Amino acid sequence: MWVVVTTDHPKGPSDYLHFKPPYQPQTTEGPCPFCPGNEGMTPREIFSLNREGGGWSVRVIPNKFPFFHVEGEFDRRPEGMYDVMEAIGAHEIVVEGSEHKQNLASMESHQGKKVLMAYRERLIDLEKDQRFQQFLILKNYPGMFNRHPHSHIMAMPVIPRRIDEEIRGTLDYYQRKERCIFCDIIKEEISMKKRVILETVHFLVFSPFASRYPFETWIIPKNHCPDFHRIKEEEIEDLSVAIQSLFLRFSKLLSDPPYSFSFHTSPVQSRFHRAEYHWHIETRLRIGLREGFEWGTGFFVNPTPPENAAAYLREVE
Amino acid sequence: MWVVVTTDHPKGPSDYLHFKPPYQPQTTEGPCPFCPGNEGMTPREIFSLNREGGGWSVRVIPNKFPFFHVEGEFDRRPEGMYDVMEAIGAHEIVVEGSEHKQNLASMESHQGKKVLMAYRERLIDLEKDQRFQQFLILKNYPGMFNRHPHSHIMAMPVIPRRIDEEIRGTLDYYQRKERCIFCDIIKEEISMKKRVILETVHFLVFSPFASRYPFETWIIPKNHCPDFHRIKEEEIEDLSVAIQSLFLRFSKLLSDPPYSFSFHTSPVQSRFHRAEYHWHIETRLRIGLREGFEWGTGFFVNPTPPENAAAYLREVE
Repeated sequence: MWVVVTTDHPKGPSDYLHFKPPYQPQTTEGPCPFCPGNEGMTPREIFSLNREGGGWSVRVIPNKFPFFHVEGEFDRRPEGMYDVMEAIGAHEIVVEGSEHKQNLASMESHQGKKVLMAYRERLIDLEKDQRFQQFLILKNYPGMFNRHPHSHIMAMPVIPRRIDEEIRGTLDYYQRKERCIFCDIIKEEISMKKRVILETVHFLVFSPFASRYPFETWIIPKNHCPDFHRIKEEEIEDLSVAIQSLFLRFSKLLSDPPYSFSFHTSPVQSRFHRAEYHWHIETRLRIGLREGFEWGTGFFVNPTPPENAAAYLREVE
Repeated sequence: MWVVVTTDHPKGPSDYLHFKPPYQPQTTEGPCPFCPGNEGMTPREIFSLNREGGGWSVRVIPNKFPFFHVEGEFDRRPEGMYDVMEAIGAHEIVVEGSEHKQNLASMESHQGKKVLMAYRERLIDLEKDQRFQQFLILKNYPGMFNRHPHSHIMAMPVIPRRIDEEIRGTLDYYQRKERCIFCDIIKEEISMKKRVILETVHFLVFSPFASRYPFETWIIPKNHCPDFHRIKEEEIEDLSVAIQSLFLRFSKLLSDPPYSFSFHTSPVQSRFHRAEYHWHIETRLRIGLREGFEWGTGFFVNPTPPENAAAYLREVE
C-alpha cells in the first residue's frame, strides 16, 4: 500500500482544532442505561467485576442492537448470482466504569486495567464457541448514542478483510525472511527513535511509517504474541499505563479529539489461528477528513508526517 | 467481501436527517478564487469551455495544494526497511460553473454535460504522459475549503488498492466464466428490478447488492467499456441526465445530504490497461457513520438494505 505523506506544508495540531466530531451524540431522554441503578434497562449481564465497597466497576452486557446474532444457523445460500448468509456472532458492550462523565484520559489507572481484564476474560470465554473465527475489540469516542464510557466486543464468523490482508502480508514476509514483520518493525523503530512516542517495559507506542491518518498511533507488545487474550497480568498493568498516557497526550495536544481504536489480534480456532501474527492496537483520531479520496481509491493522503506527529506527542506535557 | 445488512430495524431516510456534514467548510475571507473575475487568483488555466455570450462555463486549473506534483523524478529508494518514492502525478480542479451557489441537483442539464466533457478532454490529454497509470475523478460535496462547485481530477503513478482489488475480482471472474462480472450484474439487476433506481438509454442507476453504505448508488454504462474517457457524445448527454436525476432524488429524500462520488475506470498505458474492466461511478452519502467499525476491520455494516434504498429513491417525486 502506498500513502502520500505531504511534507511541503505539514499540518500541526492547531490545524485540526477547528474540526468538529462528525456527529453529535443523540441526546437520549431519561436515565442512562449504563449508569449504576439502571441495570434493569439493559439485557442480562454477561460478566462483571466487583468494586471494593460494593457494586460493579466494569460490566459486560449484550448489545441491544447487535450487528450479529448469537442464535441461529449460518444458512449459506445463493441469491441470484450473489451469496447470502445469516450474520451469526456475538456483539457485547463493555461498560467501562460506573461514572457517566469519564474518559480514558481522565480515568484512574486501576480502572483502565479492569477494562482490559474484562476484555481478556470475555475473549477467553467466547473462544469456546467454535463458530467464531475472529474477535474485534473496538471503541469509538465519543460514543454514537451514549456518552457513558463503553466499548464493543465482537465475535465474527468470518475474518474481515483488513485483518485478512494484514495476515497475508505477515505470512508473505515470514516466508521470505522467517521472521515476524512486526518484530522487525519494533526493532527498527526503537533504533531509529524518530517515530517513537513512548516505551514501557512491555509495549511500544509509535507513529507507523507512512501512516494513513494524521496522528495515527499503534501500541504493540515488544515480545511476539499473536493473541491479545494471552496477555499476562503484569503486561495488562503496563498496557493500561501506556494507553492512558497516550490518550492523555491526545487530549492535551488536540483538545479532547474524537477517536477510534481497535485491537488487531489473530483469528482463533486452530484452523484459522496464525502464530506468525503479532497482536496490536491501532488508534485513529477522527480529525482532518479526506474521506472522499480514501473511500474512492483506498489510497491515503496524510498531511501530518508521522515523524512530526510523534515529536508533538513525545513533547506534550 | 462480506457486508452485514441489518434487516431487523432497517433505517429509512428520516433516521439520517439529524446527521450533520462531518465538517463545516472553512469560511475563507475575501473573494472566491473560482468565481469569474478572480481568475488571477488561481494557477494558470489548463483547459476551459467557453460560454455563449462570453466568458467560461467550465474551467480546469492545477490544484494549489496538490497531493501529487507533476515535476520531478520518482526516485524510488529504501528508508530503513521501508520504501519511499516522490508523489509524482497531476492534481487538477474542475470548476463546474461560474455560479458560486450551485450544485449538481440544481444545475442546468447542459452545464452537467459540459463538466463531463471537460473530464473527458483532460483524461485524453493526461493519457499522453506515460508516467501515469491511473486516473481518478472525484467530487466531495460540500467542498472542504470552498463551496463553489468543483471536482478533482488526479493522475496517479500507481494503481490504488481499491481499484486494484476490483480489477483482480474482475479478472478472476473473467477467467472462470469468460464474461464481464459487471455486465452480468447489470443483466441480473435489470431482470430482478428491486435494486434499480432508474434506467436511461445507455446507463443503469442502482443500489448494489449488499451495499456497504446506506443509499450507496452506482451509475454504470449498460454496454461494456473499460474507460470513461472513451465515452461518446450521445452517452455524455444521457449520463448527465442520469447523474442529475439521481442527485435531485438524494437532495429531496435526504434534504441536501453531503456526498462523495468517484469514477472507477481502467488503468491506462497498454501494460496496465484492462479490457475486461467496466467503468462506473460509485456514489456515497456521508451520513450514518459507523466509521470505527469499518476502519478497524474493513467489514461493513449497512442499516439500510439496498432494496429499501432503491425503493425510496425510485418513488421520490
